Amino acid sequence: MITLFTDFGWEGPYVGQLKAALIREAPGLAIVDLMHDAPVFNPRASAYLLAALVEEFPLGSVFLAVVDPGVGDPERRPAVVHADGRWFVGPDNGLFNVVAIRSSRPQWWDITWQPPHLSRSFHGRDLFAPVAARLARGEPPPGKQRALEQRVRTDWPDDLAEIIYIDHFGNALTGLRAACVNDTAELQVGGCALRRAGTFAEVGSGEAFWYENSSGLIEIAVNQGRADKLLHLGIGDAVEVA
Amino acid sequence: MITLFTDFGWEGPYVGQLKAALIREAPGLAIVDLMHDAPVFNPRASAYLLAALVEEFPLGSVFLAVVDPGVGDPERRPAVVHADGRWFVGPDNGLFNVVAIRSSRPQWWDITWQPPHLSRSFHGRDLFAPVAARLARGEPPPGKQRALEQRVRTDWPDDLAEIIYIDHFGNALTGLRAACVNDTAELQVGGCALRRAGTFAEVGSGEAFWYENSSGLIEIAVNQGRADKLLHLGIGDAVEVA
Amino acid sequence: MITLFTDFGWEGPYVGQLKAALIREAPGLAIVDLMHDAPVFNPRASAYLLAALVEEFPLGSVFLAVVDPGVGDPERRPAVVHADGRWFVGPDNGLFNVVAIRSSRPQWWDITWQPPHLSRSFHGRDLFAPVAARLARGEPPPGKQRALEQRVRTDWPDDLAEIIYIDHFGNALTGLRAACVNDTAELQVGGCALRRAGTFAEVGSGEAFWYENSSGLIEIAVNQGRADKLLHLGIGDAVEVA
Repeated sequence: MITLFTDFGWEGPYVGQLKAALIREAPGLAIVDLMHDAPVFNPRASAYLLAALVEEFPLGSVFLAVVDPGVGDPERRPAVVHADGRWFVGPDNGLFNVVAIRSSRPQWWDITWQPPHLSRSFHGRDLFAPVAARLARGEPPPGKQRALEQRVRTDWPDDLAEIIYIDHFGNALTGLRAACVNDTAELQVGGCALRRAGTFAEVGSGEAFWYENSSGLIEIAVNQGRADKLLHLGIGDAVEVA
Repeated sequence: MITLFTDFGWEGPYVGQLKAALIREAPGLAIVDLMHDAPVFNPRASAYLLAALVEEFPLGSVFLAVVDPGVGDPERRPAVVHADGRWFVGPDNGLFNVVAIRSSRPQWWDITWQPPHLSRSFHGRDLFAPVAARLARGEPPPGKQRALEQRVRTDWPDDLAEIIYIDHFGNALTGLRAACVNDTAELQVGGCALRRAGTFAEVGSGEAFWYENSSGLIEIAVNQGRADKLLHLGIGDAVEVA
Repeated sequence: MITLFTDFGWEGPYVGQLKAALIREAPGLAIVDLMHDAPVFNPRASAYLLAALVEEFPLGSVFLAVVDPGVGDPERRPAVVHADGRWFVGPDNGLFNVVAIRSSRPQWWDITWQPPHLSRSFHGRDLFAPVAARLARGEPPPGKQRALEQRVRTDWPDDLAEIIYIDHFGNALTGLRAACVNDTAELQVGGCALRRAGTFAEVGSGEAFWYENSSGLIEIAVNQGRADKLLHLGIGDAVEVA
């Protein structure tokens, strides 16, 4: 299975071009669109979101992940990461940082292979897709293995106490894993103190609360309402556990 | 074939998580996204829409349908319905009412099986997807069969004289099947009386009319314009056949 | 591979109904959604966009392309085009004009086959999808071959000096192939004169420029900004090479 995680949006030809490149190299392989509205141009928020979503995917899965404001920057190397039995292909701008650090014995390769035609602005299609397809076919990473400590940022926290995504329903996801927070903790956000609830049905209509979402993250929600509107929340807003 | 009908939106990871769960259980099976913008939190409007769309799908198809504002409510049981050779899996909140009532000899099961891990807020992924995959593989419904009359609401009309969906082009779909209405009937909606036309080309530019859409429903449209804007229409608005 | 190019939008059941029709006729075939937001009701802009995107698709590919404001018009015939080893199925309203003219020895068929049930408003599902599936299975076009000069418009330019698409990031694509324009040329658009750059990183933050995009078209962009907003650009706006 190849899983796509991008900030391309569903609009335009970009996701389709990515898939055509994958199918050419790996016909018959299942492709799953996990997200195409990852936090736009924001590899840091995306890194915490991606890490929360990977566990339910089977071992051997390949994630083709592109959130890459710096495409064209020679400092930004293409990377392959192997973490807890899953593969990740994309830019080395921090997007795989959280996955790598949370896993046991992650491995890291700088991709040295180059395709015959590499456009300057669409590495997803031209470089990352063929590499992902090869990994899915069982081939080794076409690059040079690196010590992880040379490649991973150490200035990012274990959990990110910020809003990292606003979903379709107006719920605000944080970069905090609920399992790491006491059930009785209050969450300070947007000037309000929120308490934990198990589900939407446990609070009154219009009431804001936090809960452990189905991916294990702390999520801020409003029963029968939009948390983003009610609390004026946006990606990057700080939250505090008290 | 497994067909998805949800109000999840294309945004966020939810549709992708649903598909990953399906592929894990039924690799190689075709998955079709029928709609992810079913009338949000509105199982009643969704029920009439779903019923209008199923006939073109082959016998043996499995519909995984989730429009479920009450997830977490213990009164709301998960259900499997078999109707006219097709399977339906989702919440028993009325979503399958119209399909069941319009079919001959429908069968109804309450799902008693539980997955090893059931999140409180994402039954689509954790419960309905594995059940749908099993049905698609030819396994029997993992539950207890019930007499239909115990499970179906009888307070809903055969056809719903309301707007049930506004599409991408601003056309307003109703819950009325055109085959049940006289061709010369007028439709009263938004303070206007509309007559029937065969296609858009038959009326003047900017003119509103009703016609039988490609799924057999009465649909309100404007030639080269948006019916929702011109007539100020929204989901739930009443229409009257005169 | 069957590739979809439509102006249906991702909303509503239309794309799903198209795919169900394809899968019924050609089970197991890969389907790629290239675009569902082709310039709406605009076969001319869509024609230049489609032509720029097809080359990366393998020989033998079938494009099911529908941008069809005139559905129901008896003058508008359904067509199959074979161009440079790829197949195209859709309305003969100009959508395949640019692909046909740019290819060597294109062939053109008027579709004479009719399905048992042809709705008046959804030829994509009822007529074009079954024809595309047959071509993908290796069957010949179900129609009558025509001399190309009888079917192609000759009043359209080789390249279209207009904005033909605004993407998710606010970049404005033109109908001009960059390979046909001098690298030092300036582009006049929205009252501004833009110079060429290789990538976003080569210009200052907030600066507008033109570059050759990953499909070979001249594209107008702003580093870390939206070209459509900054320069007030929309589909159909004229651009001039100076």
